[in-house]
Amino acid sequence: MSPDTVLPRTGVGIDVHAYAPEDSPRPLWLGGLLWPGERGLAGHSDGDAVAHAAADALFSAAGIGDLGTHFGTDRPEFAGASGATLLAEAARIVRAAGFEIGNVAVQFVANRPKFGPRREESQRVLSEAAGAHVGVTATTSDGLGFTGRGEGVSAVATALVYPQPAAPIS
Amino acid sequence: MSPDTVLPRTGVGIDVHAYAPEDSPRPLWLGGLLWPGERGLAGHSDGDAVAHAAADALFSAAGIGDLGTHFGTDRPEFAGASGATLLAEAARIVRAAGFEIGNVAVQFVANRPKFGPRREESQRVLSEAAGAHVGVTATTSDGLGFTGRGEGVSAVATALVYPQPAAPIS
Amino acid sequence: MSPDTVLPRTGVGIDVHAYAPEDSPRPLWLGGLLWPGERGLAGHSDGDAVAHAAADALFSAAGIGDLGTHFGTDRPEFAGASGATLLAEAARIVRAAGFEIGNVAVQFVANRPKFGPRREESQRVLSEAAGAHVGVTATTSDGLGFTGRGEGVSAVATALVYPQPAAPIS
Repeated sequence: MSPDTVLPRTGVGIDVHAYAPEDSPRPLWLGGLLWPGERGLAGHSDGDAVAHAAADALFSAAGIGDLGTHFGTDRPEFAGASGATLLAEAARIVRAAGFEIGNVAVQFVANRPKFGPRREESQRVLSEAAGAHVGVTATTSDGLGFTGRGEGVSAVATALVYPQPAAPIS
Repeated sequence: MSPDTVLPRTGVGIDVHAYAPEDSPRPLWLGGLLWPGERGLAGHSDGDAVAHAAADALFSAAGIGDLGTHFGTDRPEFAGASGATLLAEAARIVRAAGFEIGNVAVQFVANRPKFGPRREESQRVLSEAAGAHVGVTATTSDGLGFTGRGEGVSAVATALVYPQPAAPIS
Repeated sequence: MSPDTVLPRTGVGIDVHAYAPEDSPRPLWLGGLLWPGERGLAGHSDGDAVAHAAADALFSAAGIGDLGTHFGTDRPEFAGASGATLLAEAARIVRAAGFEIGNVAVQFVANRPKFGPRREESQRVLSEAAGAHVGVTATTSDGLGFTGRGEGVSAVATALVYPQPAAPIS
């Protein structure tokens, strides 16, 4: 290929969080947004499966590990961080490793919340966090599996990044 | 990057449909094909999880929402549409939003039908619908989960699209 | 687009393997590595869901079928092949079909094994097999579904390939 060809790299990210038990309720954070009145997700963090899948897809595309690699026990300051904060830090780490970010796409599977009315707001919050376009979409699993039974939320993300040295000087 | 660099955008699509109950059987539509003698999938549409995941991946890559955004209750004319019809309309919407379509890849998870003998036929039908290459593959979940128990079909798709203004004039 | 534009094609791969029953234990192969002391996965092959998802994503991106197409009953020599061997053969087939391989990214979902300490070793083995970068990451499903119950391992992969004729002569 020609020397100034910019070859993207693909990445994939998956995240699943269970709903918090009824006897220790939490607020729901999903797609970088707070959803008043909705049952929250469990987890040491805020449980935002959408933001976490997006961050994992960025790490995956860069080939530099995953959430556990970067936000594990040696960085306790991220233990309770919001999904948008984790995504912003993931994007910073990926750029520091020598990559530009193309875009990120996430789809989550859950019975609730009703996402359409706040989809653009979610995309805006996560895109600002990542410094690149983050598209977010939603679907259900038609009553099947743990998402269909309302036990939790799953999310799958893909991302494209570009090695910075491959970019021609314009 | 150089001004004529064409940067793709990635998208992801997931769809799940449960099989129709035995007391209200339906024909099976999957991958744009009718499968005589196979138990059909439920849903307001034809339940074609492969075509729906492909359409969702296109919307996701373009960052313009999902199936619910475009084929919701305000467009009742698509309520009973075939998967290939929905995919063709999704491709039209994505192009009208300013994107060229690179390709779409879908893998579905199900115990049945036996897909190999009709894989190329399915790819031909969906590629014609999308106006771009749609690859379709199949696997099982080794007896695990709702697909392993034969309760439904899940499909995951990725897609690449290109912003039209970024394409150089040749 | 200009004639020397190199357009990637995306692919997706999914694989699920159940753990072998306790009365017929097997060694665990995952991500191209042997995991001593861990419960193994079932399957006619070595059950390496990570390597299989990576191979399926390559076939998917090239649009030439899936594991069943290429390693089915007509090629019994691959019945017991290791995941790395299958991935190497998949990469050979994809190149013979006219594609260069960009990269592959895989994330698996399982409670065990603890992947972080051997992630780079796994990436090295699978990248050597594919002749291209294969990134591997891990997560759990927060106790939900068949992976959460410890019944099996699932993996999702994405890949990018490039049609060889589209590459300019440099």
